[in-house]
Amino acid sequence: MPGKRVAFQGEHGAYSEQAVLTFFGEADPKPCRTVRQVFEAVEERSCEFGLVPAENSLEGSVTQTYDSLLESSLKIRGEIKLRIIHCLLALPNTKISDIREVYSHPQALAQCSIFLKTLDAECIPSYDTAGSAKMIREKQIGNAAAIASERSAHTYGLTILRHNIEDSAENYTRFFIIGWLDASRGEKNKTSIAFRTKHVPGSLCNVIGELARRGINLTKIESRPVRTTPWEYSFFVDFEGHAEEKPCAEALDAMKTLTTHLRVLGSYPSAT
Amino acid sequence: MPGKRVAFQGEHGAYSEQAVLTFFGEADPKPCRTVRQVFEAVEERSCEFGLVPAENSLEGSVTQTYDSLLESSLKIRGEIKLRIIHCLLALPNTKISDIREVYSHPQALAQCSIFLKTLDAECIPSYDTAGSAKMIREKQIGNAAAIASERSAHTYGLTILRHNIEDSAENYTRFFIIGWLDASRGEKNKTSIAFRTKHVPGSLCNVIGELARRGINLTKIESRPVRTTPWEYSFFVDFEGHAEEKPCAEALDAMKTLTTHLRVLGSYPSAT
Repeated sequence: MPGKRVAFQGEHGAYSEQAVLTFFGEADPKPCRTVRQVFEAVEERSCEFGLVPAENSLEGSVTQTYDSLLESSLKIRGEIKLRIIHCLLALPNTKISDIREVYSHPQALAQCSIFLKTLDAECIPSYDTAGSAKMIREKQIGNAAAIASERSAHTYGLTILRHNIEDSAENYTRFFIIGWLDASRGEKNKTSIAFRTKHVPGSLCNVIGELARRGINLTKIESRPVRTTPWEYSFFVDFEGHAEEKPCAEALDAMKTLTTHLRVLGSYPSAT
Repeated sequence: MPGKRVAFQGEHGAYSEQAVLTFFGEADPKPCRTVRQVFEAVEERSCEFGLVPAENSLEGSVTQTYDSLLESSLKIRGEIKLRIIHCLLALPNTKISDIREVYSHPQALAQCSIFLKTLDAECIPSYDTAGSAKMIREKQIGNAAAIASERSAHTYGLTILRHNIEDSAENYTRFFIIGWLDASRGEKNKTSIAFRTKHVPGSLCNVIGELARRGINLTKIESRPVRTTPWEYSFFVDFEGHAEEKPCAEALDAMKTLTTHLRVLGSYPSAT
């Protein structure tokens, strides 16, 4: 039994696929080219759930995910934080001293800059980490390596020449699980909302003040431009607690009077 | 007399170069490959000033600029907002019906999607708008066009086949001018600051509350991850007024007691 069909962005072997399997245990992960296509796969019900990257602890927010959340009716129904461990992968029987080219996503290349300086190899940016591993296998490129996940090595039959080649161990990605229905309430929950502020001085302060004065912890705030009106912004706020718990429900009611377009994107169990 | 040496990101003909000339009038613009290199050109004093993109009204903040501001001692000493007008450029004597390939930065291609559907041409992403124009000229690629600025056409001797091919007229980029010294005070000013909040509930609300309760208008807030500590953020806030004006100076003093690492990135005349 393959389990639930879950759409993710990237090729098989991607960090996102690893996050799908960690979150769901059993699952049938379906690769999508873009974040927007992950949303569409769930909207069109060809997949039950989707998993999309929200933010990385080194690079920041994934803007396509935030823009897609605004355009979609889907709910955030979970989060998972995954430690990103980069590996150097090559065709079997390749030695590390043979490597002359290293392929990966530009961010992954940048995140392994210290290790890469120890090689005598050219860094070649590509669209995807797992996609680089796939290309080396399909085109049988000798003397080349990919920076990708351990999972990619198994997926494409490559050898891991080196584990943990990233400069910083503090490299985590937080993903959202999206779907049609609200999540069941967990022991500790988080709520994600989106809103625009009204045109009055101090408006953002007044809105998030409704959380502060109830002792509700704001864990993340992000702003994205309103594309139809230059220099106006939609805000995304995450806070601790479930939208149905009394202090959160009261804060949300108060925030509705101080904002336009306020939407609860979801309440879901917090990642540990 | 060529005027001040001003570093900008991109090739000659870039929108950034147009912003340099609009802001300074006379200037000697110096192209740099990356935003970080614009900062370095000013830090090493090979240029007097730099101009870097801060945010675009459709795409949002330019994260490399915010990260570089934190790492650098340079000041923000001005801002300019430029309307982005995309043009279709090709070698002289090319007809629009001849075009089979269109080269440009992926964002520019996406921003002209309605017009591009009227062509029978393949869209090919490249690293830069002006760079695409330069490549068509240097490699003499017939039956191809670039999406770039009107300025790029003059720079590279290309013909403008069509003006204003962008989907949305609400396409503006805001740039910062950076340099070693503070700007002179203008009639209307803006101040940009960066800070981290202390670990107490409601801390962000308390910080921006110091602006709100003095009637100071917050015009933009941006968060970026603290790379050494996952899920902690540096905040960037722009507000109306000069750091030396009494209410702003008082707000800044109060904010210093509520934050760590608070830095005034600059007070400068507001763009109209």
